[in-house]
Formats: sequence, structure tokens, C-alpha cells
Amino acid sequence: MSGLMQQPTSRLRSWWGWGWSDAHPGDAECTAMGALIPGTLARPLPVPRVCDLAVPPPAVEPPGSLAHLVDTDPQQRAAHAMGKAYRDVVRALRGRPGRFPDLVARPTDEQEVADLLDWAGDGQIAVIPYGGGSSVTGGVEYRGDAHRAVLSLDLTAMGRVLEVDTAGRSARIQAGALGPDLEDQLRPHGLTLRHFPQSFEFSTLGGWLATRAGGHYATGRTHIDDHVQSLRVVTPAGTHASWRLPSSGAGPSPDRLFLGSEGALGVITEAWMRLQARPVHKASASVAFTYFPAALEAVRALAQSDLSPANCRLLDAGEAALSGASHQGCAVLVLGFESADTPVADRLAQAVDLARAHGGRSAGPAAGSGAGGGPADRAVSAWREAFLRMPYLRDGLARMGAVAETFETAATWDRVPALIEEVRREVGAAALKATGYPATVNCRLTHVYPDGAAPYFTVLAAGRAGDEVALWDDLKAVASEVLHRHRATITHHHAVGRDHRPGYDRQRPDPFALALSAAKGALDPRGILNPGVLVG
Amino acid sequence: MSGLMQQPTSRLRSWWGWGWSDAHPGDAECTAMGALIPGTLARPLPVPRVCDLAVPPPAVEPPGSLAHLVDTDPQQRAAHAMGKAYRDVVRALRGRPGRFPDLVARPTDEQEVADLLDWAGDGQIAVIPYGGGSSVTGGVEYRGDAHRAVLSLDLTAMGRVLEVDTAGRSARIQAGALGPDLEDQLRPHGLTLRHFPQSFEFSTLGGWLATRAGGHYATGRTHIDDHVQSLRVVTPAGTHASWRLPSSGAGPSPDRLFLGSEGALGVITEAWMRLQARPVHKASASVAFTYFPAALEAVRALAQSDLSPANCRLLDAGEAALSGASHQGCAVLVLGFESADTPVADRLAQAVDLARAHGGRSAGPAAGSGAGGGPADRAVSAWREAFLRMPYLRDGLARMGAVAETFETAATWDRVPALIEEVRREVGAAALKATGYPATVNCRLTHVYPDGAAPYFTVLAAGRAGDEVALWDDLKAVASEVLHRHRATITHHHAVGRDHRPGYDRQRPDPFALALSAAKGALDPRGILNPGVLVG
Repeated sequence: MSGLMQQPTSRLRSWWGWGWSDAHPGDAECTAMGALIPGTLARPLPVPRVCDLAVPPPAVEPPGSLAHLVDTDPQQRAAHAMGKAYRDVVRALRGRPGRFPDLVARPTDEQEVADLLDWAGDGQIAVIPYGGGSSVTGGVEYRGDAHRAVLSLDLTAMGRVLEVDTAGRSARIQAGALGPDLEDQLRPHGLTLRHFPQSFEFSTLGGWLATRAGGHYATGRTHIDDHVQSLRVVTPAGTHASWRLPSSGAGPSPDRLFLGSEGALGVITEAWMRLQARPVHKASASVAFTYFPAALEAVRALAQSDLSPANCRLLDAGEAALSGASHQGCAVLVLGFESADTPVADRLAQAVDLARAHGGRSAGPAAGSGAGGGPADRAVSAWREAFLRMPYLRDGLARMGAVAETFETAATWDRVPALIEEVRREVGAAALKATGYPATVNCRLTHVYPDGAAPYFTVLAAGRAGDEVALWDDLKAVASEVLHRHRATITHHHAVGRDHRPGYDRQRPDPFALALSAAKGALDPRGILNPGVLVG
Repeated sequence: MSGLMQQPTSRLRSWWGWGWSDAHPGDAECTAMGALIPGTLARPLPVPRVCDLAVPPPAVEPPGSLAHLVDTDPQQRAAHAMGKAYRDVVRALRGRPGRFPDLVARPTDEQEVADLLDWAGDGQIAVIPYGGGSSVTGGVEYRGDAHRAVLSLDLTAMGRVLEVDTAGRSARIQAGALGPDLEDQLRPHGLTLRHFPQSFEFSTLGGWLATRAGGHYATGRTHIDDHVQSLRVVTPAGTHASWRLPSSGAGPSPDRLFLGSEGALGVITEAWMRLQARPVHKASASVAFTYFPAALEAVRALAQSDLSPANCRLLDAGEAALSGASHQGCAVLVLGFESADTPVADRLAQAVDLARAHGGRSAGPAAGSGAGGGPADRAVSAWREAFLRMPYLRDGLARMGAVAETFETAATWDRVPALIEEVRREVGAAALKATGYPATVNCRLTHVYPDGAAPYFTVLAAGRAGDEVALWDDLKAVASEVLHRHRATITHHHAVGRDHRPGYDRQRPDPFALALSAAKGALDPRGILNPGVLVG
């Protein structure tokens, strides 16, 4: 990825779909994929073009002092109109994208962010903070009409690592740093943030912080939250600048109010982040299970041990087949260990033993332990490749008129088995009823904890030509009802955005809603920041 | 301790000093201790008696429906008038304790808590939530005169473990559970919270949560915050009831707003807490260092390794001598490892090797590893005993007119060496100037992190007869200036209370102060909850 970043001009980001334009599956690949899902189109929908859209002129003009920061190019405005959820892609394909922002601004320092907020506040202009634009929950689009105009505040011109404290393993990093660029800047110092969400290549530090992103580690400190030492956040009421502290007990954590605030309370401009030494010891393996409930028990035992695997992802049989990790109808547990200072082969062996004790079958020697190339190795590699390619394939399936989307949650262990079963059953039944075709609903556990797990679902189904968004919204509503019934969170790491607001409002304790609204009123009294997200 | 709890009526809690009345050092021991500190009294101040205080009649009377919950006994009101800081003990010894609460209420369920808050709100009565009363920062006393009366809300009648989820290693526990009683109730399930602050015997779960207490673990998840699965909090605006979740990314963490809210936003009534299996493998050792800076480097290396010691406390030479861990003028690192499922001798050996590589000298075989009784073992035991006895001795020294108090902070590693040195030098110089006698200022690291550490200071000095509180406040102000200069937190785990308000106000980012005040206004519109703490 670093190679790609060194020649950013050579590749174009897709304005309507995931990632790089040249990485999208072609028409033939789309057609082949579509053929695997009954009830889809015979030919892919055409790749949409901005020139076919009626992009209205901007409703406002920036003052001369800010004009150099502002872009009104229709292509850029279209690219900033939505995130990258399935429903966003479909809306683009169907020529009905979300509201175009009037302006895209790219500030280069904190003062410019503050100036833009001041101007927007004076002019009743909604401000949508925008990092890599990879939101899958409607987090970066404007809905409604209560504002005179909409400004997409793109932070990617603020992407530098500003300071590195090698002895203290931390760095001050601007919020607009995209994943690969951030790691490139840390590499010469022998350090790494080790935060690798699926969106890594196309998401920013600021976006991760604003959405409490889940990252690389499948156990322990899974969310970005725990890696934050201090934050700077520009709000309409002033700049929040917390102290660099390894830990503190002075009142409620100030930073935790802004972590997960999704741009509704302020614009995160930089953070001191806790880093890791680059791991030199790595080992991975996969374990197959005939019975998914046994695999769940194995994973719970692992999560409750002190082995601390970095990777501990359990794929159900459908997900294992889809990703190429196993075609034997088995669930597959992908295990990975890493350390900067201690060999990890022992821990891997103990973990595999523990999984075996719960009915797992090791699929061969572990990758990275010198014996690579066995079936286990292939399962791990297949899974990794599929993981990174998945969003591109989703867009290809969208072009075939299929439903192809994911969602995730987390719940305590006592809820997990029934939750997974009921989501599979009820979403599958709803899709069949709506389309007349059977659907695929797969599950994997992406993160596991001593007290619970985060199931992640993939839905592949026939679409309903021209009405795919409503169909998906219906299926998601069915899933959300199951989540609510089991008191499972509406999101483990995809954020609330606008799509999850109903579920979030039901989940959020009322007194906290009061407190959050009051905080919003104090920090954003004119209500310009990401309106409709979280509160208001 | 569980033995003590089985016969609670046989022992009396001290109303003016730490812990059990019968555990206080007698006059002879006080005199002997005082003789070690130049410039103290020849004879101890008498143990204060409630009957010598002018306890005014309560300013209000509860309604009949709540009368059975309310205690107006002067002894109880005196015991609830203050926490257990040195300045509290001295004020009691000098016959000038804080304002007596008019009433002490002991609700037995959540509805009674809500009813008491309603009544207090109607009557402009300040409500001070009270757990074990072990605050050392003025967290449980009323200062000012803006309220018609003061109610101390004692939660200890709500001390039950209500549910245990053995498979999910968690339990629903009422906030008023004192440490030993909480562990007694978990023991039959093979589970433990493993939160053992120095105040363990005399502090409650609710107090730990409201103050973000630091506990047993010296590395990793040091604060109680990370062990919380969900909370129930009664506020004047309704009851906050978050869902049991292993993890969530839905908006800013609702519970983190209440963790550390110190009773100013609501009354925590219960929590689902994450538990541990009881450890069966344990090993400890101590390592001596001639040079403190080398010891700091060793501890940083340990904190940055993946060895995860449960105990990793570094005592400087003075602290080591004071606690009996070493009288050789050496700094001592006390290491402890524990696990429920994996032998820990290897990790201990690796940690000792790492410490040796930084100039440490292992003092002999490790305790708990079968060879006990060596010098290392004695250092560990001496430290543990001194740790638990320390607050009692502090009160004995207070009776001798000495200054004897502690405070703590946390800072990044780049700040730690100068911070410790300057606190030692400047507080020592201030004490000498104020009293004419040299003072002892010791330091230990109680908690360590990859990016910093939590230094904990002990000050022993001559007093200024009749003026000890002002003297201590002056010394603390000197220390707080050093902390501020190094951007070290005003508290790592002792909370803000009223004593740390000036330091907290300087440390807290302004926008967060606005947000917190707004949240307070929304949840406690009549301003009755622990007035003066954190905001307002």
C-alpha cells in the first residue's frame, strides 16, 4: 500500500464506490458473480458518471479569505455527497445520490478549521466533517433542509505525523492522515499504530476517533479509544486540548466525550496516539470446527484465557466458504499472535490446543512458524485477501442488482448463540419473502471479549430492481429488531451515523441523551455540526 | 478480612480517623513514631470525642414516608461529615471538623434513592453520595451555604451481589458493597473483581466507580473503568440504565460520563462488572537498584514489554526504607505475576532478567515459587503489610502534630524523572521553610504504562501546631504547581473532590468544562448533587 501512496496521482478514487476506480471488478467479473446469486440482473448496471447527474450550483460562496480552501468541482462534490455503504453505492448507481455538498473545503491547519466553522456558523451552513469518506452508516451526508447550505469539511490536507516520542512510544498525528500514509510516517521510527480496519487504506485517524473504530486487535484493546493519549478538537465554542497523559482519574474522561461523537460536537484535528513497537514475532493458524456452537465455546475459552491472540476471528461455514478459507462446510477459527519482544509459537500452540479441546481440528502447521504453505496457511491467506477485496466485490454485486451488505453488533456470551441464529433466520426469511429467492446470511466473530463477542453479518440476496435501497432498509430493520430484542448494540465499530439513529435512540439511556443534547447545545449552539447525527 | 466482616458488630469504625477504632496505634506507639520526625509534639493529641463537639440539631426533618431511612444520631452525622484525608483527620483532632450533614439516609433500594432525591430537590437540600467514606480529596463533605440542609446519602445498605453470569464472568452488584463483602459474595462462584485499592476494606463499588479508582493491577487495566459492563445511575432527571455490552461503538460511551462523575451527575446504584477467574498461579520477587534513574528505565522497559505484571511497584530508597522493603539505601521494584490458567514463573523470570539488564539486583528467589522466605520474599511481605497499615500510622502521626500525607499523579515518561525530582525538592524546601525542620518526601510508582507512569508521593514533616491544615494546603499547592508545570494530572486515582478543584479546573479543557456543566444542568437542574464537586 505504501507503494500506492507514493504515486497518489496515478490512481483515481472512485466517487461512487469503494476505493480505487481501477480496482473495481469489470463487467465480466460482475456478471460471473451475479450468476452465483439467484434473482439478480443478467447484465451489470452501468458505472455511473457525474456528468449524468444534475449537480446544482453551490448555494453559497465562501468569503475571499477562505476561497482558496474551497472546491466546487462537481466531481468532488459528488464524491463527498455520501459514504460507502451499500445503500450509498446503489443510490449512485440509480442516479439518486444524497444531497451534494455545496462546497468541499480542505483546511491545512487548525486555524483554518476554526475560521471555516465561524463562517459556517454565521451563515447557517451545515458542516460535515469528512476523513476518508468510508462511512457505512450515513455519517457523512446531509439529510434535511434546515440549513442554508452544506459544507463538506475534508481533513485530508492535514495528514502529517507532527512529533514522535520514541521512548514513550507515542506520536502527535493530524486527524486527516489516511491509514497507509500514517504508517509510512511512523515506520522510520520503528513504531506502528497497528490499527487496521477493513477501510484502512481509505479512512483517516480522525474518522477512526470520531467513530470509535475497531481495528486490528481481535481481543483486548480492540477499539481505537484505548490508544488515545490526548486530543485536539475544534468546536464552535473553542478548542478542546487535553493533556498528554498515560492515564488519569480526574473527573469523567474528557476525551471519551469526543471519541464517538461523529463530528456532532467538534472537529478532531489531531491526537497524541499510543503506538507499538513493530512486531517481529508472528504466527498464525486456523482451526476447523464441524459444529458452530462448539466453536463459539472454544472462542469464549480463548477470550477468557490470558493468551491474548491479536487475531481470533471465527467464520461460520458460509463465511468460510465465501472467503475461500474452507469449502468443507466447516466453521474456521483464524488465530494470529504477534509480539515485538517474545516468541509467540508457544502461545499459538496453547491456543490451538485449547481449540482442539473444544472439538476443533487444526488444519496443519501454523503460518509464520517456519512451516508455512500448509492448509492452515492457505486458509489464513485466503481470508486476508478476501477481507481486503470484499468491498470491491460488494460494489460489483450492487451493479448486478443484488443486495450485498454487512452489519455488526456485540452482545454478552449468553446472548450470542440465539442472536446469531435469529438474525440468520429472520433476515433470510424476510429476504425470501421480499424477493422470492433464498438469501445467504453469514456470520463471523470479528472481536471477542471475556464477557461477549462481536458478530459481523454478511447478507447476499437478490435485489428488487430499482427498489434496492428500500429492500435493504427493510432487511436491516428486521436485523435491528433482533439486535434490540437481545440488547445487542446497534453497532460495535461502524458508528451510528444517520442509518443507525433509530436503533441508537432506543439503546441510549435517556439521561445520557439529555446530557449529550445539553453538551451539543453548549459546544455547537448554532447546530451546524453534522446535523442529525447522534442528537437533534 | 472476611472474618472481620462476619462479625461487623464486634468492631467499631472510627468516626474521625481511618478504619477500625481498635486498630489505631496507641499513645505509646504514636509517641515513638513522632520521635522519628523532628519538630513534632512530645505527646499525642487526644483522640477526639463526638460529645465534645457542638453538633447542631438537623435543619430539616424528612417526611414520614422516608423517616425510617434517616439517621440523625450525632455520632453518625460526625462520621459522615468528612472523608479520611490527613486534613480531615487533623480537623477532627483540632475539634473543627467539616459541616455535619443534617441527616444520614440509608436507602435499601433504587426507588428509595429516587424518592430521597425528589424530596431533596423540592427542599433545596444538598445530597452527598457516600460509600465507604474513604475520600482523601474532600469528596464527601459539604462546603458553602447555598442549600437549606445537607443529606449524606449512605449507600452501604445496598451491598448485594444480585446476579452472577458465570459463563460470561460478570456480576450485577449493588453500589454500596464494601470491598471484602463484595469479594465474599463472589468467592463461591470462583470469581473475583480483583480490585484492591489501599482503601479496599473501607470503600465501595459505587465509590470506586464514581471516582475512577485505581486498583490491584499495576499495568494494563489499572482503573475500575475498564471493568464496567453496564451501569445504573439515579439522577434527578431519571434513571440511567445502560445495556450489558462487552464493547460498543455507538456514540460516545454513555457510562464513561458517569465514571468519575463523583456524585455530581447522579447516584450510581448498581453495575454489571467484568470479573476474573481466581488466580491459582502466583509468583513475586523484588529487585534492588542503586540508581533510581536506572530503575525508572527498567520499569519503562517492563511496561513496554508484553509480560503484563499484575504488580510492578517501584519504591524509591526512602519509600523502601519506610516500608521496610529495604534499608540499604536502594530503590526496590516489587514484581508480581498471577494467572488463573498459565504458570507464571517464566514471565517472572523474564521480568527479573529485564530488570537485571537495567542494573537491578535480584534480592533472591521469588516468593510463591516454592522457595519463599528469602530476602525478596521479605521485601514483598514487608511492603504489603506496610501498605495496609499506612493509613493508621498516618493518623497516629497526625496525633503527634506531624504532617503525614500522600498524593499522586501520572505523566508521560519524558516528564517523570524531572517531575519526581522537583516535587521532592520543592515540597521539601517549602516544608523546611515553613517549619524549620527537614521533611521526608518519598516516591513510589504505583501504576506503570507503556507511555508513562503514576508517581505516588509520601510527605512526612514537622507540623505547625494548630495550623496543620493550612501548612498542608500550602505544601500541596507547591506540589500542584510542579504537577501543572509538567502537565501531570492532578490525580491518577484519588479523584478531584473539593481539594483538587483548582488543579482540575486548570487541567480540564474549556470546551469539556462547558459540556460537563451543560450535562450537570440537564441531569441535576436544581443543583443538589454533591455541590462544588467537578462543576458549579
